[in-house]
Amino acid sequence: MKSEKVKLGLIGLGTVGTGVVKVLKDYDNIEIKKIAVKNINKKRDIENLAPSILTTDPFEIVNDPEIDIVVEVIGGTDPAFELLKTAINNKKHIVTANKELLAKKGQELFNLANEKNVTILYEAAIAGGIPIIMPIKTTLAGNKIHKIEAILNGTTNYILTKMEKDNVSYEEVLKEAQKLGYAETDPTGDVEGFDSAYKIATLATIALNQRVDINKIYKEGITKISANDMQFAKELGYKIKLIALAKLTDDNKADVRVHPMLVPQKDCLASINGVTNSVVLEGFPVGRVMFAGPGAGMFPTASSVLGDILAIVSGIGSDNLLPFMKCNHTKNAQQISIEQTTNRYYISITANNNPGVIGTIGKICGNHNINLASVLQKGIDKENTARIIIITEESIEENINNAIDELKNNSSIVKINNLIRVME
Amino acid sequence: MKSEKVKLGLIGLGTVGTGVVKVLKDYDNIEIKKIAVKNINKKRDIENLAPSILTTDPFEIVNDPEIDIVVEVIGGTDPAFELLKTAINNKKHIVTANKELLAKKGQELFNLANEKNVTILYEAAIAGGIPIIMPIKTTLAGNKIHKIEAILNGTTNYILTKMEKDNVSYEEVLKEAQKLGYAETDPTGDVEGFDSAYKIATLATIALNQRVDINKIYKEGITKISANDMQFAKELGYKIKLIALAKLTDDNKADVRVHPMLVPQKDCLASINGVTNSVVLEGFPVGRVMFAGPGAGMFPTASSVLGDILAIVSGIGSDNLLPFMKCNHTKNAQQISIEQTTNRYYISITANNNPGVIGTIGKICGNHNINLASVLQKGIDKENTARIIIITEESIEENINNAIDELKNNSSIVKINNLIRVME
Repeated sequence: MKSEKVKLGLIGLGTVGTGVVKVLKDYDNIEIKKIAVKNINKKRDIENLAPSILTTDPFEIVNDPEIDIVVEVIGGTDPAFELLKTAINNKKHIVTANKELLAKKGQELFNLANEKNVTILYEAAIAGGIPIIMPIKTTLAGNKIHKIEAILNGTTNYILTKMEKDNVSYEEVLKEAQKLGYAETDPTGDVEGFDSAYKIATLATIALNQRVDINKIYKEGITKISANDMQFAKELGYKIKLIALAKLTDDNKADVRVHPMLVPQKDCLASINGVTNSVVLEGFPVGRVMFAGPGAGMFPTASSVLGDILAIVSGIGSDNLLPFMKCNHTKNAQQISIEQTTNRYYISITANNNPGVIGTIGKICGNHNINLASVLQKGIDKENTARIIIITEESIEENINNAIDELKNNSSIVKINNLIRVME
Repeated sequence: MKSEKVKLGLIGLGTVGTGVVKVLKDYDNIEIKKIAVKNINKKRDIENLAPSILTTDPFEIVNDPEIDIVVEVIGGTDPAFELLKTAINNKKHIVTANKELLAKKGQELFNLANEKNVTILYEAAIAGGIPIIMPIKTTLAGNKIHKIEAILNGTTNYILTKMEKDNVSYEEVLKEAQKLGYAETDPTGDVEGFDSAYKIATLATIALNQRVDINKIYKEGITKISANDMQFAKELGYKIKLIALAKLTDDNKADVRVHPMLVPQKDCLASINGVTNSVVLEGFPVGRVMFAGPGAGMFPTASSVLGDILAIVSGIGSDNLLPFMKCNHTKNAQQISIEQTTNRYYISITANNNPGVIGTIGKICGNHNINLASVLQKGIDKENTARIIIITEESIEENINNAIDELKNNSSIVKINNLIRVME
């Protein structure tokens, strides 16, 4: 460790950046030398912020020879990618909370960091304040992790929790969440699963020890979940959650995806409510471990950024990078497509109220090697149609798609309302 | 990092030791040079175990100049304390799963380790396979942790889960747990809270950053919890768990204790069932984070031992200990007594079925500054007594004790059946 102060450059002074400045004020051995902002004149909720350290040019930071660590909290790939590339080329260590950048450009950045013998730490990018990346790299370092089940997006978990609790529609809850600031005006990034997909791409890369390609991650959001689905799931003993999933198949391929799932009520992920995030890892020798906590917010995110900064500060000055500072996944994952995956399925069907319609559904499923685990018939409506909910045994998704096609073409079937995968 | 093999001596080859040998076989850079066992001729479930590395004299290991790391998994203080003292004096790093030793002799061992510039890592001693010590030392390093609520003993959690689920008595479940090997023939260490107390002593020391004295930890087991208590708790929206608790009071004193608690059903700790362990930390800036997983067992424990070994191996050869390898709590905690703590309370009372008995109870509580949050009266029995369950608002334990004394002396009160603290 150097005896003089470690010098830090901060890119971004929004919510997370402000949190980082606030928590760093207690550290005499760390100096924030420069902060890049959009608007230098904006009033900010930070005591004793010297205007002289603000700049509107982030390249001043990444090119400053005195700066040891660059902390990037602006998000997005542009200009973050260019900035971090420059910083790494200038042999600076990186701490970032930028999940989109890591998912899209992680491989290039990590390769460059290896070449330049610097580190990129990113605890804050995945699951906010929850310690998850460092435990995987340290305590769990001897494990072969074969499964991750996670709730990585607070906005969608808030919406789903509220839909279930108050028995209201997605649209209603979204409006309320937007008013409360839990959802953005354009909520696409959250509700369509982009945010979760970015995070699971990076988390799966480190946990499965294979480079996962964000472009090959199947992604489905929560906008099609109805209040009815919520209630039927509840009756059947489940909650609906947006799950980021990664597992190794028996032949060591990677099955990585984001979509809603029916989670058994007794599973610990079912009790993760509101904006909380959670990550469940399964591996050998550890078995199944769970982490939960705040997935976002000024201080939880700053906690993780601070942990990474302190880790780098502790390693600065030694000749070699510490093992947890290395980023060396040379193997690209062989990712399977969603059609190749195996799941249990919840299928909500509107059917004509003919005698034998459940038999018809059962027969069609059987034609495609799909066994039914349970069938729930809900009341007849005024059009004389019935809602039939089936839960299947484990089936190959391709077979499910074929069965759905055949069901759609059957005269007894009015509509397939929804298809949601079910957690084992 | 040295290029030659790191040499390891293992003291103990029971369940955990066997797990450690099994998981280390994949590491070419680590050699198990010697293993100390009680019985050298015992048949063991380990492939290719060279009999020549076994010894019945553990001092051969701690005095072997070639050995870099001593892994101690025998448990208890004698001879573990002497062995580890000798090992540290001989400048060996230590990995231990020995919670009793750490609780009783940790201070002495850590002081000695500091003096000799070696480390003692002990992830496996607290909550088995769950990564908790390393996250506190790394990702959460910048936090001031002010509260720990934990389930640290699998045996008692198994018993309580089973009592609640099957509505049976403690004695019945204990017998079954003993048959299944989940509880020992003499279950005292688990059911009276010793095991949890050892663990919270060490966990609180690292998390609160103050040395906690095991002798000042209040400890109460689960033997007095009745099937009735379980059912009343359920009706009131709680589960009963054996909780290891540590918090900092407003004036920075330490409140550390182990006792059963009514946990609100919506609290994540309420959903920790069976032999699973869980630790909830509250601190700034992170907020509230939770960790859960297997608290014992051959492989989960070996996972944590392995993580510690790999951490030490990564640091061997560098001049300074890495920060997470240092053990420097110089400040002794000022621990408050149980009488000084503040809690909510569940009190189960058998009273004569007089009109106004609830009023009497309310008045006596009022005399001692205790407000009632809820009152539940259960059916009258053949002796014409009623069971009255009260839950109090936050009260000082000393006041509760005085109220209990006054209640006992009141002619309307037949018996105080139980008093259990309630989690906020």
